[in-house]
Amino acid sequence: MTDTSQAVLMNGADLARSHVDRTADRAAEFERRTGRRPCLATVLVGDDPASATYVRMKQNRCRRAGIDSRHTPLPATTSTGELIDVIRGLSADPEVHGILLQHPVPQHVDERAAFEAIDPAKDVDGVTMHSFAAMAFGLDGFDSCTPGGILRLLDAYDVDPAGRTAVVIGRSPILGRPVSALLLARDATVTTCHSRTPDLPSAVRTADIVVAAVGRPEFVRGDWIKPGAVVIDAGYNPGNVGDVAFDEAVERAGMITPVPGGVGPMTISVLLEQTVDAAFRQAGPDGTS
Amino acid sequence: MTDTSQAVLMNGADLARSHVDRTADRAAEFERRTGRRPCLATVLVGDDPASATYVRMKQNRCRRAGIDSRHTPLPATTSTGELIDVIRGLSADPEVHGILLQHPVPQHVDERAAFEAIDPAKDVDGVTMHSFAAMAFGLDGFDSCTPGGILRLLDAYDVDPAGRTAVVIGRSPILGRPVSALLLARDATVTTCHSRTPDLPSAVRTADIVVAAVGRPEFVRGDWIKPGAVVIDAGYNPGNVGDVAFDEAVERAGMITPVPGGVGPMTISVLLEQTVDAAFRQAGPDGTS
Repeated sequence: MTDTSQAVLMNGADLARSHVDRTADRAAEFERRTGRRPCLATVLVGDDPASATYVRMKQNRCRRAGIDSRHTPLPATTSTGELIDVIRGLSADPEVHGILLQHPVPQHVDERAAFEAIDPAKDVDGVTMHSFAAMAFGLDGFDSCTPGGILRLLDAYDVDPAGRTAVVIGRSPILGRPVSALLLARDATVTTCHSRTPDLPSAVRTADIVVAAVGRPEFVRGDWIKPGAVVIDAGYNPGNVGDVAFDEAVERAGMITPVPGGVGPMTISVLLEQTVDAAFRQAGPDGTS
Repeated sequence: MTDTSQAVLMNGADLARSHVDRTADRAAEFERRTGRRPCLATVLVGDDPASATYVRMKQNRCRRAGIDSRHTPLPATTSTGELIDVIRGLSADPEVHGILLQHPVPQHVDERAAFEAIDPAKDVDGVTMHSFAAMAFGLDGFDSCTPGGILRLLDAYDVDPAGRTAVVIGRSPILGRPVSALLLARDATVTTCHSRTPDLPSAVRTADIVVAAVGRPEFVRGDWIKPGAVVIDAGYNPGNVGDVAFDEAVERAGMITPVPGGVGPMTISVLLEQTVDAAFRQAGPDGTS
Protein backbone atom coordinates (compact mmCIF):
# COMPACT_ATOMS: atom_id res chain seq x y z
CA MET A 1 0.00 0.00 0.00
CA THR A 2 2.48 2.63 -1.14
CA ASP A 3 1.52 5.94 -2.62
CA THR A 4 2.45 5.52 -6.28
CA SER A 5 0.79 6.98 -9.33
CA GLN A 6 0.43 3.52 -10.86
CA ALA A 7 -1.75 1.17 -8.86
CA VAL A 8 -1.10 -2.56 -8.77
CA LEU A 9 -3.89 -4.40 -10.60
CA MET A 10 -5.28 -7.26 -8.52
CA ASN A 11 -5.67 -10.00 -11.07
CA GLY A 12 -8.58 -12.11 -9.88
CA ALA A 13 -8.80 -14.00 -13.16
CA ASP A 14 -5.28 -15.45 -12.84
CA LEU A 15 -5.65 -16.09 -9.13
CA ALA A 16 -8.98 -17.86 -9.64
CA ARG A 17 -7.42 -20.08 -12.31
CA SER A 18 -4.71 -21.38 -10.01
CA HIS A 19 -7.24 -21.62 -7.18
CA VAL A 20 -9.58 -23.72 -9.36
CA ASP A 21 -6.62 -25.92 -10.37
CA ARG A 22 -6.01 -26.75 -6.71
CA THR A 23 -9.71 -27.42 -6.23
CA ALA A 24 -9.72 -29.74 -9.25
CA ASP A 25 -6.81 -31.70 -7.74
CA ARG A 26 -8.78 -32.08 -4.51
CA ALA A 27 -11.93 -33.10 -6.41
CA ALA A 28 -9.90 -35.80 -8.17
CA GLU A 29 -8.54 -36.94 -4.81
CA PHE A 30 -12.12 -37.13 -3.51
CA GLU A 31 -13.12 -39.27 -6.49
CA ARG A 32 -10.14 -41.60 -6.00
CA ARG A 33 -11.02 -42.02 -2.36
CA THR A 34 -14.79 -42.44 -2.61
CA GLY A 35 -15.48 -43.56 -6.17
CA ARG A 36 -17.76 -40.59 -6.83
CA ARG A 37 -17.43 -36.90 -7.57
CA PRO A 38 -18.32 -33.95 -5.38
CA CYS A 39 -21.80 -32.82 -6.41
CA LEU A 40 -23.27 -29.31 -6.45
CA ALA A 41 -27.05 -28.97 -6.78
CA THR A 42 -28.17 -25.77 -8.49
CA VAL A 43 -31.72 -24.42 -8.25
CA LEU A 44 -33.03 -21.68 -10.55
CA VAL A 45 -36.53 -20.26 -10.18
CA GLY A 46 -37.96 -18.51 -13.24
CA ASP A 47 -36.30 -17.64 -16.52
CA ASP A 48 -34.32 -14.47 -15.99
CA PRO A 49 -31.68 -14.70 -18.75
CA ALA A 50 -28.84 -13.24 -16.64
CA SER A 51 -29.52 -15.74 -13.83
CA ALA A 52 -29.68 -18.60 -16.34
CA THR A 53 -26.29 -17.51 -17.70
CA TYR A 54 -24.77 -17.39 -14.22
CA VAL A 55 -26.03 -20.89 -13.41
CA ARG A 56 -24.73 -22.27 -16.71
CA MET A 57 -21.35 -20.67 -16.08
CA LYS A 58 -21.19 -22.28 -12.63
CA GLN A 59 -22.14 -25.67 -14.06
CA ASN A 60 -19.42 -25.39 -16.73
CA ARG A 61 -16.79 -24.50 -14.16
CA CYS A 62 -17.89 -27.40 -12.00
CA ARG A 63 -17.53 -29.84 -14.88
CA ARG A 64 -14.06 -28.61 -15.75
CA ALA A 65 -13.00 -29.01 -12.10
CA GLY A 66 -14.31 -32.58 -11.86
CA ILE A 67 -17.40 -31.62 -9.85
CA ASP A 68 -20.78 -33.00 -10.84
CA SER A 69 -23.67 -30.58 -10.96
CA ARG A 70 -27.32 -31.43 -10.78
CA HIS A 71 -29.68 -28.73 -11.96
CA THR A 72 -33.28 -28.17 -10.87
CA PRO A 73 -35.05 -25.51 -12.97
CA LEU A 74 -38.35 -24.37 -11.49
CA PRO A 75 -41.07 -22.24 -13.10
CA ALA A 76 -41.42 -18.56 -12.15
CA THR A 77 -44.76 -19.45 -10.54
CA THR A 78 -43.13 -21.72 -7.91
CA SER A 79 -44.40 -20.94 -4.41
CA THR A 80 -42.20 -20.50 -1.35
CA GLY A 81 -43.51 -23.80 0.02
CA GLU A 82 -42.74 -25.70 -3.18
CA LEU A 83 -39.25 -24.23 -3.33
CA ILE A 84 -38.62 -25.12 0.32
CA ASP A 85 -39.71 -28.70 -0.37
CA VAL A 86 -37.24 -28.97 -3.26
CA ILE A 87 -34.39 -27.55 -1.18
CA ARG A 88 -35.20 -29.77 1.81
CA GLY A 89 -35.10 -32.75 -0.54
CA LEU A 90 -31.62 -31.74 -1.71
CA SER A 91 -30.53 -31.11 1.89
CA ALA A 92 -31.55 -34.68 2.77
CA ASP A 93 -30.07 -36.29 -0.36
CA PRO A 94 -26.73 -38.00 0.44
CA GLU A 95 -25.66 -37.73 -3.22
CA VAL A 96 -25.68 -33.93 -3.01
CA HIS A 97 -22.78 -32.21 -1.20
CA GLY A 98 -23.55 -28.55 -1.86
CA ILE A 99 -26.64 -26.50 -2.73
CA LEU A 100 -26.83 -23.23 -4.63
CA LEU A 101 -30.11 -21.34 -4.92
CA GLN A 102 -29.54 -18.72 -7.61
CA HIS A 103 -30.24 -15.20 -6.34
CA PRO A 104 -32.56 -13.37 -6.88
CA VAL A 105 -35.76 -15.43 -6.76
CA PRO A 106 -39.08 -14.00 -8.04
CA GLN A 107 -40.56 -11.30 -5.81
CA HIS A 108 -43.42 -13.44 -4.48
CA VAL A 109 -40.98 -15.99 -3.03
CA ASP A 110 -39.63 -15.57 0.53
CA GLU A 111 -35.94 -15.87 -0.34
CA ARG A 112 -34.81 -15.95 3.29
CA ALA A 113 -37.13 -18.88 4.09
CA ALA A 114 -35.81 -20.70 1.02
CA PHE A 115 -32.17 -20.06 2.00
CA GLU A 116 -32.86 -21.38 5.50
CA ALA A 117 -34.05 -24.70 4.02
CA ILE A 118 -30.42 -25.32 3.00
CA ASP A 119 -28.64 -27.59 5.48
CA PRO A 120 -25.75 -25.44 6.81
CA ALA A 121 -23.42 -28.40 6.08
CA LYS A 122 -24.32 -27.98 2.37
CA ASP A 123 -24.45 -24.17 2.29
CA VAL A 124 -21.46 -23.83 -0.04
CA ASP A 125 -22.77 -20.47 -1.29
CA GLY A 126 -22.74 -19.10 2.28
CA VAL A 127 -26.25 -17.65 2.34
CA THR A 128 -27.78 -19.09 5.52
CA MET A 129 -28.07 -17.28 8.84
CA HIS A 130 -25.76 -19.94 10.30
CA SER A 131 -23.05 -19.22 7.73
CA PHE A 132 -23.38 -15.47 8.34
CA ALA A 133 -22.89 -15.85 12.09
CA ALA A 134 -19.98 -18.26 11.52
CA MET A 135 -18.28 -15.60 9.36
CA ALA A 136 -18.92 -12.93 11.98
CA PHE A 137 -17.66 -15.04 14.89
CA GLY A 138 -14.72 -16.56 12.99
CA LEU A 139 -16.15 -20.08 13.40
CA ASP A 140 -15.93 -23.04 11.03
CA GLY A 141 -18.42 -22.68 8.22
CA PHE A 142 -18.80 -21.56 4.65
CA ASP A 143 -18.13 -18.02 3.44
CA SER A 144 -20.52 -16.12 1.24
CA CYS A 145 -18.71 -16.61 -2.07
CA THR A 146 -18.01 -13.04 -3.15
CA PRO A 147 -16.91 -11.90 0.34
CA GLY A 148 -14.80 -15.05 0.67
CA GLY A 149 -13.28 -14.34 -2.76
CA ILE A 150 -12.42 -10.78 -1.70
CA LEU A 151 -10.58 -12.03 1.40
CA ARG A 152 -8.65 -14.60 -0.67
CA LEU A 153 -7.69 -11.84 -3.11
CA LEU A 154 -6.42 -9.63 -0.27
CA ASP A 155 -4.44 -12.56 1.12
CA ALA A 156 -2.91 -13.34 -2.27
CA TYR A 157 -1.68 -9.74 -2.54
CA ASP A 158 -0.39 -9.75 1.06
CA VAL A 159 -2.90 -7.15 2.23
CA ASP A 160 -3.42 -7.99 5.89
CA PRO A 161 -6.65 -6.32 7.11
CA ALA A 162 -5.46 -6.39 10.75
CA GLY A 163 -5.00 -2.90 12.15
CA ARG A 164 -6.26 -1.22 8.97
CA THR A 165 -9.39 0.81 8.42
CA ALA A 166 -11.91 -0.64 5.98
CA VAL A 167 -14.98 1.01 4.51
CA VAL A 168 -17.60 -1.25 2.95
CA ILE A 169 -20.21 0.48 0.81
CA GLY A 170 -23.34 -1.65 0.74
CA ARG A 171 -25.01 -3.94 3.26
CA SER A 172 -26.81 -6.71 1.42
CA PRO A 173 -27.09 -10.01 3.33
CA ILE A 174 -24.84 -11.89 0.89
CA LEU A 175 -22.29 -9.20 0.05
CA GLY A 176 -21.91 -6.01 2.07
CA ARG A 177 -22.78 -7.36 5.52
CA PRO A 178 -20.72 -10.57 5.29
CA VAL A 179 -17.66 -8.82 3.84
CA SER A 180 -17.85 -6.35 6.75
CA ALA A 181 -18.10 -9.32 9.14
CA LEU A 182 -15.12 -11.11 7.59
CA LEU A 183 -12.94 -7.98 7.63
CA LEU A 184 -13.83 -7.35 11.29
CA ALA A 185 -13.06 -10.99 12.15
CA ARG A 186 -9.65 -10.36 10.54
CA ASP A 187 -9.05 -7.36 12.84
CA ALA A 188 -9.83 -4.49 10.48
CA THR A 189 -11.69 -1.47 11.89
CA VAL A 190 -14.76 -1.65 9.69
CA THR A 191 -17.28 1.03 8.76
CA THR A 192 -20.35 -0.18 6.88
CA CYS A 193 -21.84 2.57 4.69
CA HIS A 194 -25.09 2.65 2.73
CA SER A 195 -27.76 4.90 1.25
CA ARG A 196 -28.35 6.61 4.61
CA THR A 197 -24.68 7.48 5.18
CA PRO A 198 -24.48 11.27 5.61
CA ASP A 199 -21.09 12.02 3.96
CA LEU A 200 -19.92 9.01 2.01
CA PRO A 201 -16.92 10.64 0.24
CA SER A 202 -15.45 11.69 3.60
CA ALA A 203 -16.01 8.22 5.06
CA VAL A 204 -14.31 6.56 2.09
CA ARG A 205 -11.36 8.97 2.37
CA THR A 206 -10.50 7.48 5.78
CA ALA A 207 -10.18 3.94 4.44
CA ASP A 208 -7.05 1.88 3.89
CA ILE A 209 -9.30 -0.73 2.24
CA VAL A 210 -12.43 0.20 0.27
CA VAL A 211 -14.99 -2.39 -0.81
CA ALA A 212 -17.62 -1.11 -3.24
CA ALA A 213 -20.74 -3.29 -3.30
CA VAL A 214 -23.56 -0.96 -4.25
CA GLY A 215 -24.57 -2.07 -7.73
CA ARG A 216 -24.37 1.43 -9.22
CA PRO A 217 -22.01 2.01 -12.16
CA GLU A 218 -18.93 4.14 -11.38
CA PHE A 219 -20.56 5.35 -8.18
CA VAL A 220 -17.30 5.62 -6.21
CA ARG A 221 -15.23 8.49 -7.60
CA GLY A 222 -11.46 8.71 -7.77
CA ASP A 223 -11.15 11.71 -5.43
CA TRP A 224 -12.87 9.71 -2.66
CA ILE A 225 -9.89 7.35 -2.54
CA LYS A 226 -7.12 7.91 0.00
CA PRO A 227 -3.81 7.81 -1.87
CA GLY A 228 -2.36 4.31 -1.64
CA ALA A 229 -5.61 2.62 -0.56
CA VAL A 230 -6.62 -0.88 -1.67
CA VAL A 231 -9.78 -0.61 -3.77
CA ILE A 232 -11.97 -3.69 -4.21
CA ASP A 233 -14.75 -3.31 -6.75
CA ALA A 234 -17.43 -5.95 -6.15
CA GLY A 235 -19.85 -4.28 -8.55
CA TYR A 236 -20.82 -5.73 -11.87
CA ASN A 237 -23.16 -3.53 -13.84
CA PRO A 238 -24.41 -3.85 -17.42
CA GLY A 239 -21.66 -3.27 -19.97
CA ASN A 240 -18.90 -4.76 -17.74
CA VAL A 241 -18.81 -1.65 -15.57
CA GLY A 242 -17.95 -1.77 -11.88
CA ASP A 243 -19.09 0.36 -8.94
CA VAL A 244 -15.81 2.32 -8.99
CA ALA A 245 -14.81 4.93 -11.57
CA PHE A 246 -11.74 2.88 -12.46
CA ASP A 247 -9.89 5.42 -14.63
CA GLU A 248 -10.00 7.95 -11.80
CA ALA A 249 -9.38 5.56 -8.91
CA VAL A 250 -6.40 3.84 -10.52
CA GLU A 251 -4.53 7.18 -10.29
CA ARG A 252 -4.78 7.22 -6.49
CA ALA A 253 -5.13 3.63 -5.32
CA GLY A 254 -2.20 1.51 -4.24
CA MET A 255 -3.95 -1.62 -5.51
CA ILE A 256 -7.23 -1.99 -7.36
CA THR A 257 -9.36 -4.75 -8.86
CA PRO A 258 -10.35 -4.36 -12.51
CA VAL A 259 -13.89 -5.12 -13.74
CA PRO A 260 -14.11 -7.66 -15.24
CA GLY A 261 -11.27 -9.92 -14.11
CA GLY A 262 -11.07 -8.81 -10.46
CA VAL A 263 -13.56 -10.00 -7.86
CA GLY A 264 -15.91 -11.80 -10.29
CA PRO A 265 -13.77 -14.85 -11.07
CA MET A 266 -12.96 -15.33 -7.37
CA THR A 267 -16.65 -15.79 -6.56
CA ILE A 268 -17.04 -18.97 -8.59
CA SER A 269 -13.68 -20.31 -7.43
CA VAL A 270 -14.81 -20.06 -3.78
CA LEU A 271 -18.05 -21.85 -4.68
CA LEU A 272 -16.08 -24.75 -6.18
CA GLU A 273 -13.58 -24.84 -3.30
CA GLN A 274 -16.37 -24.97 -0.73
CA THR A 275 -18.26 -27.67 -2.65
CA VAL A 276 -15.20 -29.91 -2.45
CA ASP A 277 -14.74 -28.98 1.24
CA ALA A 278 -18.36 -29.99 1.88
CA ALA A 279 -17.89 -33.29 0.05
CA PHE A 280 -14.85 -34.20 2.17
CA ARG A 281 -16.58 -33.21 5.42
CA GLN A 282 -19.69 -35.22 4.57
CA ALA A 283 -17.62 -38.22 3.51
CA GLY A 284 -15.89 -38.29 6.90
CA PRO A 285 -12.36 -39.37 7.70
CA ASP A 286 -12.74 -42.86 6.19
CA GLY A 287 -14.11 -41.56 2.89
CA THR A 288 -17.60 -43.03 3.32
CA SER A 289 -20.76 -40.98 3.68
CA MET B 1 -28.70 16.07 20.26
CA THR B 2 -27.98 19.73 20.87
CA ASP B 3 -24.64 21.08 21.95
CA THR B 4 -25.25 22.10 25.55
CA SER B 5 -22.86 22.08 28.43
CA GLN B 6 -25.25 19.96 30.48
CA ALA B 7 -25.94 16.56 28.99
CA VAL B 8 -29.30 14.85 29.40
CA LEU B 9 -28.94 11.81 31.66
CA MET B 10 -30.52 8.73 30.10
CA ASN B 11 -32.27 7.15 33.02
CA GLY B 12 -32.28 3.43 32.36
CA ALA B 13 -33.42 2.60 35.87
CA ASP B 14 -36.73 4.49 35.52
CA LEU B 15 -37.28 3.29 31.97
CA ALA B 16 -36.63 -0.32 32.96
CA ARG B 17 -39.12 -0.03 35.81
CA SER B 18 -41.97 1.02 33.52
CA HIS B 19 -40.84 -1.51 30.95
CA VAL B 20 -40.93 -4.31 33.55
CA ASP B 21 -44.39 -3.13 34.65
CA ARG B 22 -45.68 -3.64 31.13
CA THR B 23 -44.00 -7.05 31.00
CA ALA B 24 -45.62 -8.01 34.33
CA ASP B 25 -49.03 -7.08 32.89
CA ARG B 26 -48.36 -9.31 29.90
CA ALA B 27 -47.14 -12.15 32.13
CA ALA B 28 -50.39 -11.90 34.12
CA GLU B 29 -52.35 -11.97 30.85
CA PHE B 30 -50.44 -15.10 29.86
CA GLU B 31 -51.29 -16.74 33.16
CA ARG B 32 -54.99 -15.83 32.81
CA ARG B 33 -55.05 -17.28 29.33
CA THR B 34 -53.07 -20.48 29.88
CA GLY B 35 -53.30 -21.17 33.60
CA ARG B 36 -49.53 -21.16 34.01
CA ARG B 37 -46.74 -18.61 34.20
CA PRO B 38 -44.02 -17.85 31.69
CA CYS B 39 -40.93 -19.81 32.78
CA LEU B 40 -37.26 -18.89 32.42
CA ALA B 41 -34.67 -21.62 32.97
CA THR B 42 -31.33 -20.37 34.27
CA VAL B 43 -28.14 -22.42 34.11
CA LEU B 44 -25.01 -21.52 36.07
CA VAL B 45 -21.79 -23.48 35.75
CA GLY B 46 -19.30 -23.15 38.62
CA ASP B 47 -19.35 -20.86 41.62
CA ASP B 48 -18.11 -17.46 40.50
CA PRO B 49 -19.69 -15.12 43.07
CA ALA B 50 -20.43 -12.32 40.58
CA SER B 51 -22.19 -14.73 38.23
CA ALA B 52 -24.17 -16.21 41.12
CA THR B 53 -25.26 -12.68 42.07
CA TYR B 54 -26.36 -11.90 38.52
CA VAL B 55 -28.42 -15.08 38.30
CA ARG B 56 -30.05 -14.42 41.67
CA MET B 57 -30.90 -10.89 40.59
CA LYS B 58 -32.51 -12.19 37.39
CA GLN B 59 -34.54 -14.76 39.36
CA ASN B 60 -35.76 -12.07 41.75
CA ARG B 61 -36.83 -9.80 38.90
CA CYS B 62 -38.62 -12.73 37.26
CA ARG B 63 -40.55 -13.48 40.44
CA ARG B 64 -41.62 -9.87 40.87
CA ALA B 65 -42.84 -9.78 37.25
CA GLY B 66 -44.89 -12.96 37.60
CA ILE B 67 -42.41 -15.12 35.70
CA ASP B 68 -41.37 -18.49 37.12
CA SER B 69 -37.70 -19.33 37.09
CA ARG B 70 -36.17 -22.74 37.29
CA HIS B 71 -32.52 -22.84 38.24
CA THR B 72 -29.98 -25.51 37.33
CA PRO B 73 -26.66 -25.03 39.15
CA LEU B 74 -23.85 -27.18 37.76
CA PRO B 75 -20.39 -27.85 39.24
CA ALA B 76 -17.33 -26.09 37.79
CA THR B 77 -16.11 -29.47 36.57
CA THR B 78 -19.09 -29.89 34.19
CA SER B 79 -17.95 -30.95 30.72
CA THR B 80 -19.16 -29.38 27.48
CA GLY B 81 -21.07 -32.57 26.69
CA GLU B 82 -22.80 -32.63 30.07
CA LEU B 83 -23.76 -28.97 29.76
CA ILE B 84 -25.11 -29.50 26.24
CA ASP B 85 -27.23 -32.41 27.51
CA VAL B 86 -28.75 -30.22 30.22
CA ILE B 87 -29.51 -27.40 27.76
CA ARG B 88 -30.97 -29.78 25.18
CA GLY B 89 -33.22 -31.14 27.91
CA LEU B 90 -34.47 -27.62 28.68
CA SER B 91 -34.89 -26.89 24.96
CA ALA B 92 -37.15 -29.94 24.67
CA ASP B 93 -39.09 -29.28 27.88
CA PRO B 94 -42.53 -27.76 27.10
CA GLU B 95 -42.70 -26.23 30.61
CA VAL B 96 -39.69 -24.02 29.86
CA HIS B 97 -40.23 -20.94 27.62
CA GLY B 98 -36.82 -19.30 27.80
CA ILE B 99 -33.26 -20.42 28.58
CA LEU B 100 -30.42 -18.35 30.01
CA LEU B 101 -26.91 -19.80 30.27
CA GLN B 102 -25.01 -17.40 32.50
CA HIS B 103 -21.88 -16.05 30.80
CA PRO B 104 -18.98 -16.73 31.26
CA VAL B 105 -18.67 -20.49 31.65
CA PRO B 106 -15.44 -22.08 32.94
CA GLN B 107 -12.57 -21.98 30.44
CA HIS B 108 -12.61 -25.72 29.65
CA VAL B 109 -16.22 -25.50 28.41
CA ASP B 110 -16.96 -24.69 24.76
CA GLU B 111 -19.36 -21.82 25.38
CA ARG B 112 -20.39 -21.48 21.73
CA ALA B 113 -21.35 -25.17 21.53
CA ALA B 114 -23.37 -24.77 24.74
CA PHE B 115 -25.15 -21.65 23.42
CA GLU B 116 -26.02 -23.48 20.19
CA ALA B 117 -27.83 -26.18 22.20
CA ILE B 118 -30.44 -23.54 23.05
CA ASP B 119 -33.48 -23.81 20.78
CA PRO B 120 -33.64 -20.43 18.96
CA ALA B 121 -37.34 -20.24 19.94
CA LYS B 122 -36.20 -20.19 23.62
CA ASP B 123 -33.09 -18.01 23.15
CA VAL B 124 -34.48 -15.11 25.19
CA ASP B 125 -30.93 -13.98 26.05
CA GLY B 126 -30.11 -13.64 22.32
CA VAL B 127 -26.84 -15.59 22.31
CA THR B 128 -27.28 -18.09 19.49
CA MET B 129 -25.91 -17.73 15.96
CA HIS B 130 -29.52 -17.69 14.75
CA SER B 131 -30.41 -14.74 16.98
CA PHE B 132 -27.28 -12.86 15.88
CA ALA B 133 -28.15 -13.22 12.19
CA ALA B 134 -31.76 -12.27 12.89
CA MET B 135 -30.53 -9.04 14.53
CA ALA B 136 -28.21 -8.34 11.60
CA PHE B 137 -30.85 -9.00 8.95
CA GLY B 138 -33.71 -7.30 10.81
CA LEU B 139 -35.67 -10.57 11.02
CA ASP B 140 -37.99 -11.81 13.77
CA GLY B 141 -35.98 -13.17 16.65
CA PHE B 142 -34.61 -12.33 20.07
CA ASP B 143 -32.13 -9.53 20.71
CA SER B 144 -29.03 -9.98 22.78
CA CYS B 145 -30.28 -8.37 25.98
CA THR B 146 -27.78 -5.54 26.50
CA PRO B 147 -27.80 -4.48 22.82
CA GLY B 148 -31.59 -4.72 22.79
CA GLY B 149 -31.70 -2.63 25.95
CA ILE B 150 -29.47 0.01 24.35
CA LEU B 151 -31.79 0.30 21.35
CA ARG B 152 -34.86 0.60 23.59
CA LEU B 153 -33.09 3.33 25.56
CA LEU B 154 -32.29 5.25 22.36
CA ASP B 155 -35.92 4.91 21.25
CA ALA B 156 -37.23 6.13 24.60
CA TYR B 157 -35.09 9.27 24.28
CA ASP B 158 -36.13 9.78 20.62
CA VAL B 159 -32.63 9.17 19.29
CA ASP B 160 -33.25 7.74 15.83
CA PRO B 161 -30.06 5.99 14.62
CA ALA B 162 -31.08 6.39 10.97
CA GLY B 163 -28.69 8.63 9.05
CA ARG B 164 -26.38 9.06 12.04
CA THR B 165 -22.82 7.86 12.50
CA ALA B 166 -22.27 5.35 15.30
CA VAL B 167 -19.00 4.10 16.74
CA VAL B 168 -19.11 0.90 18.78
CA ILE B 169 -16.01 0.16 20.85
CA GLY B 170 -15.81 -3.57 21.43
CA ARG B 171 -16.78 -6.60 19.38
CA SER B 172 -17.77 -9.42 21.72
CA PRO B 173 -20.34 -11.86 20.32
CA ILE B 174 -23.02 -10.85 22.84
CA LEU B 175 -22.38 -7.12 23.10
CA GLY B 176 -20.22 -5.21 20.62
CA ARG B 177 -21.00 -7.18 17.49
CA PRO B 178 -24.78 -7.41 18.01
CA VAL B 179 -25.14 -3.74 18.98
CA SER B 180 -23.27 -2.86 15.76
CA ALA B 181 -25.63 -5.14 13.84
CA LEU B 182 -28.76 -3.62 15.42
CA LEU B 183 -27.60 -0.04 14.78
CA LEU B 184 -26.82 -0.89 11.14
CA ALA B 185 -30.23 -2.56 10.75
CA ARG B 186 -31.67 0.74 12.01
CA ASP B 187 -29.83 2.66 9.28
CA ALA B 188 -26.91 4.09 11.25
CA THR B 189 -23.49 4.20 9.57
CA VAL B 190 -21.61 1.95 11.97
CA THR B 191 -17.90 1.68 12.69
CA THR B 192 -16.86 -1.21 14.94
CA CYS B 193 -13.64 -0.45 16.82
CA HIS B 194 -11.46 -2.70 18.98
CA SER B 195 -7.97 -3.28 20.31
CA ARG B 196 -6.48 -3.21 16.80
CA THR B 197 -8.05 0.13 15.84
CA PRO B 198 -5.20 2.48 14.88
CA ASP B 199 -6.54 5.85 16.16
CA LEU B 200 -9.50 5.27 18.44
CA PRO B 201 -9.91 8.87 19.72
CA SER B 202 -10.21 10.18 16.15
CA ALA B 203 -12.71 7.48 15.25
CA VAL B 204 -14.85 8.26 18.30
CA ARG B 205 -14.75 11.99 17.47
CA THR B 206 -16.68 11.29 14.24
CA ALA B 207 -19.59 9.64 16.06
CA ASP B 208 -23.09 10.98 16.67
CA ILE B 209 -23.67 7.89 18.83
CA VAL B 210 -20.88 6.23 20.85
CA VAL B 211 -21.32 2.82 22.47
CA ALA B 212 -18.55 1.85 24.87
CA ALA B 213 -18.38 -1.91 25.45
CA VAL B 214 -14.76 -2.62 26.24
CA GLY B 215 -14.78 -3.59 29.90
CA ARG B 216 -12.00 -1.15 30.89
CA PRO B 217 -12.79 1.46 33.54
CA GLU B 218 -13.01 5.06 32.25
CA PHE B 219 -11.29 4.04 29.03
CA VAL B 220 -13.18 6.52 26.82
CA ARG B 221 -12.06 10.06 27.64
CA GLY B 222 -14.16 13.19 27.49
CA ASP B 223 -12.16 14.88 24.75
CA TRP B 224 -12.89 11.92 22.42
CA ILE B 225 -16.57 12.88 22.43
CA LYS B 226 -17.99 15.05 19.65
CA PRO B 227 -19.96 17.89 21.26
CA GLY B 228 -23.62 16.92 21.44
CA ALA B 229 -23.06 13.19 20.86
CA VAL B 230 -25.13 10.48 22.52
CA VAL B 231 -22.85 8.42 24.77
CA ILE B 232 -23.95 4.93 25.79
CA ASP B 233 -21.77 3.30 28.44
CA ALA B 234 -22.29 -0.46 28.42
CA GLY B 235 -19.33 -1.06 30.71
CA TYR B 236 -19.66 -2.21 34.26
CA ASN B 237 -16.36 -2.49 36.05
CA PRO B 238 -15.60 -3.16 39.72
CA GLY B 239 -16.64 -0.28 41.95
CA ASN B 240 -19.63 0.72 39.79
CA VAL B 241 -17.37 2.32 37.19
CA GLY B 242 -18.26 2.41 33.50
CA ASP B 243 -16.07 2.36 30.39
CA VAL B 244 -16.52 6.11 29.93
CA ALA B 245 -14.87 8.82 32.05
CA PHE B 246 -18.29 10.16 33.01
CA ASP B 247 -17.23 13.45 34.65
CA GLU B 248 -15.37 14.46 31.50
CA ALA B 249 -17.84 13.12 28.94
CA VAL B 250 -20.89 14.70 30.58
CA GLU B 251 -19.40 18.11 29.74
CA ARG B 252 -19.48 17.42 26.00
CA ALA B 253 -22.20 14.83 25.38
CA GLY B 254 -25.75 15.76 24.40
CA MET B 255 -27.05 12.70 26.23
CA ILE B 256 -25.23 10.15 28.35
CA THR B 257 -26.03 7.02 30.36
CA PRO B 258 -24.86 6.98 33.98
CA VAL B 259 -23.24 3.91 35.55
CA PRO B 260 -25.03 2.45 37.41
CA GLY B 261 -28.62 3.17 36.40
CA GLY B 262 -28.13 3.49 32.65
CA VAL B 263 -27.73 0.45 30.43
CA GLY B 264 -27.57 -2.16 33.22
CA PRO B 265 -31.23 -2.14 34.29
CA MET B 266 -32.36 -2.30 30.65
CA THR B 267 -30.55 -5.61 30.16
CA ILE B 268 -32.69 -7.52 32.63
CA SER B 269 -35.87 -5.82 31.46
CA VAL B 270 -35.24 -7.07 27.90
CA LEU B 271 -34.65 -10.58 29.26
CA LEU B 272 -38.02 -10.52 31.01
CA GLU B 273 -39.82 -9.00 28.00
CA GLN B 274 -38.43 -11.65 25.68
CA THR B 275 -39.28 -14.48 28.09
CA VAL B 276 -42.91 -13.42 27.99
CA ASP B 277 -42.72 -13.03 24.19
CA ALA B 278 -41.38 -16.58 23.96
CA ALA B 279 -44.15 -17.90 26.20
CA PHE B 280 -46.85 -16.34 24.04
CA ARG B 281 -45.26 -17.60 20.80
CA GLN B 282 -44.90 -21.12 22.16
CA ALA B 283 -48.45 -21.11 23.48
CA GLY B 284 -49.82 -20.29 20.04
CA PRO B 285 -52.90 -18.25 19.13
CA ASP B 286 -55.31 -20.42 21.14
CA GLY B 287 -53.22 -20.23 24.31
CA THR B 288 -52.33 -23.91 24.41
CA SER B 289 -48.83 -25.28 23.93
